[in-house]
Amino acid sequence: MIEIDGERLNARLDAFAAIGATASGGVNRQALTEGDRQARRLLADLAWKRGFSVFQDPIANLFIHRAGRDDSLPPVMIGSHLDSQPAGGRFDGALGTLSAFEVLESLDDAGIETERPIVVVAWTNEEGCRFAPGCMGSTAFSAGEIPVGWQEKMTTDGVSFADELKVTIKSLQTAQMLPLGFSVHAYFEVHIEQGPSLEASDIPIGVVVGIQGTRWLEVIVKGQTAHAGTTGLSFRRDPLRALAGSLSSLYETIMPADPDARFTVGRISVDPGSVNAIPDEVYCTIDMRHPNPARLDEIEQLARSSIAGEAARQGCVVAISRSFDMAPCTFAADLQQAIERAAAARGFKSTRMMSGAFHDALFVNRIAPAAMVFVPCRDGLSHNEAEHVKPEHAVAGCQVLAHATLLIATGPGRAGS
Amino acid sequence: MIEIDGERLNARLDAFAAIGATASGGVNRQALTEGDRQARRLLADLAWKRGFSVFQDPIANLFIHRAGRDDSLPPVMIGSHLDSQPAGGRFDGALGTLSAFEVLESLDDAGIETERPIVVVAWTNEEGCRFAPGCMGSTAFSAGEIPVGWQEKMTTDGVSFADELKVTIKSLQTAQMLPLGFSVHAYFEVHIEQGPSLEASDIPIGVVVGIQGTRWLEVIVKGQTAHAGTTGLSFRRDPLRALAGSLSSLYETIMPADPDARFTVGRISVDPGSVNAIPDEVYCTIDMRHPNPARLDEIEQLARSSIAGEAARQGCVVAISRSFDMAPCTFAADLQQAIERAAAARGFKSTRMMSGAFHDALFVNRIAPAAMVFVPCRDGLSHNEAEHVKPEHAVAGCQVLAHATLLIATGPGRAGS
Repeated sequence: MIEIDGERLNARLDAFAAIGATASGGVNRQALTEGDRQARRLLADLAWKRGFSVFQDPIANLFIHRAGRDDSLPPVMIGSHLDSQPAGGRFDGALGTLSAFEVLESLDDAGIETERPIVVVAWTNEEGCRFAPGCMGSTAFSAGEIPVGWQEKMTTDGVSFADELKVTIKSLQTAQMLPLGFSVHAYFEVHIEQGPSLEASDIPIGVVVGIQGTRWLEVIVKGQTAHAGTTGLSFRRDPLRALAGSLSSLYETIMPADPDARFTVGRISVDPGSVNAIPDEVYCTIDMRHPNPARLDEIEQLARSSIAGEAARQGCVVAISRSFDMAPCTFAADLQQAIERAAAARGFKSTRMMSGAFHDALFVNRIAPAAMVFVPCRDGLSHNEAEHVKPEHAVAGCQVLAHATLLIATGPGRAGS
Repeated sequence: MIEIDGERLNARLDAFAAIGATASGGVNRQALTEGDRQARRLLADLAWKRGFSVFQDPIANLFIHRAGRDDSLPPVMIGSHLDSQPAGGRFDGALGTLSAFEVLESLDDAGIETERPIVVVAWTNEEGCRFAPGCMGSTAFSAGEIPVGWQEKMTTDGVSFADELKVTIKSLQTAQMLPLGFSVHAYFEVHIEQGPSLEASDIPIGVVVGIQGTRWLEVIVKGQTAHAGTTGLSFRRDPLRALAGSLSSLYETIMPADPDARFTVGRISVDPGSVNAIPDEVYCTIDMRHPNPARLDEIEQLARSSIAGEAARQGCVVAISRSFDMAPCTFAADLQQAIERAAAARGFKSTRMMSGAFHDALFVNRIAPAAMVFVPCRDGLSHNEAEHVKPEHAVAGCQVLAHATLLIATGPGRAGS
């Protein structure tokens, strides 16, 4: 049984929240900014003080290594990210990274040896705000290379990824450099749910079974603009009428019929956008998610045929393209079980759940067994300065992480394998 | 019987279309620009050459006066406007103004005396593009004063209405100045339909019985933004779902149930407008029109209650405000009859119809009997460089105008009164 130090963990969350703190209590610590570097240095300093080794790789992923009895074995890796959204919260990423470091310190405090080494990781640029896409660090780690074109990416104010990366790596120059990617025995990541369901069901621990598949569509319905006053119904080719009819029917069918489905229209605009003109063209995006790829296909097909049908009924034409397609991922069953056993051992209720959002664990899962622990956040709010996690939930997540890590790291095989 | 000179009329339309001509065959001759002044000077020069008197008033309405036998009688006024949309057509306004001038010349050519004087008018700023609202000239004329605040209006590039008005009036300084407003016996205006119905039914003359009432609503539906992936249905307060449901039902009920009703959503936007976020807030405009004010009330009530109902169903709140409210107008019955008689006398089919758009005649109708003649335009297109009127339809409209004007101007009473 390992006991983490909840007070220390919550004090650490406060200390890191001070780096890039915003007036409204949130955090602006975007990837590869000075704030991000400061947070990385603080974590590295804490690690050095405890005598852990600190490494980084060519994409500035930061690793803290606590030796195992057999240090040649692939490590159990735990962690998350330290970068934030521009108006982000204190917990998204930081909670998982600092919980992981707390596990390392607690093991050390208790003098517990593990068979395998344990590595804490802070992945680079999970949020993807300054440089898209997100999850750059874990993507490059799992691919073993930095994808072509990333170094040339620029922020909107003209700063290059390559330059920011160089400065960031240099700001931690005493950390030993590792090549990109190494064998990982198992990966755990604690994260806030970023949704409302754990809080609503009053369950402190979510055992994440996988990450939903996501597809984005860009929809253009083209009709014909005409005068709002002079154009009778039979002369109208109104693309907004077509789209409203179709969306209304999709809203009423997709999610109500399937609790695992997600259907969201986040952007809509019309051209020419004049109060007294029938629109010429309507544009919208559709974000569709489902854990089952076959159902995702069905939902996409339903959306396409509904929009095309309504458009034809209104004399309009349609162009629909996919702008993003991420297959669902399923986390390792034995790691899910380890999390469940850990929660039960510590007396926390837990529930299995899908993740609606992407995480670094999705990319690590491509090369090593991975799983995630979710904790509740207030009102489901995230990517928001008001993001909040109750201290006892932060402690619960960390305690479960510590227990599950120990289950997996103590023997040469994985729990249940 | 009076014969207008169709060739002269169509040549005049070409000559005026050359002022502010655009590369695509349209016209950019916005109110109180140099192009507008040039068109006014050309018309005034043509008038002076024929020996007509030219006047203007403090809002730069331009009047051309042909004396009657009893010049003390209130004149019959005919005309329209010379200003255009930025990417406007050759006929919107110009057709009515030049048809009116053609009537004056034809009367003169034929040596026909009328009992009453006849005045051709070119109203200032009908389109309202540089300075809103539209129909400034006819509004001020019918009110007898320039409304408070108009002189201070500015274009988006910082030019004031007062300055542009001053320069415009000065550019025609030999025209005698009249105070704002005078008694008018009757007013006729020829205009393109700006809608598709005359062309579709192959009828060259529309006898306009009135102008629909128009109301504009601004609708805000406020929900709560949340993550598209993590937020299940029961946690969603999606304002776009609410609005799409309501609009879809309004589109399917209001216009299909009532051929006189118009229902148009010309603008829609969402905040924050992120592909993977449920919108926080949706904004749209609604343009509603009907000839019957009681039905307009019902349509507004229907829209309000449908939106409020769907919003409540989605846990959203609604704010709806009226941004514009123009009561329907009914044109003078005897002037409508005069137009019908004129069309019949010249062998043109005619049909009674409402105008879906506003016109200067609506404002003149507040102080004097008014009526309008519509002619077909290709595909119902207007406010568009491709706007087109067949030469024979231009001639037909002008011929009917001449005939109706003569019916009303020859005696001291109005036809049928």
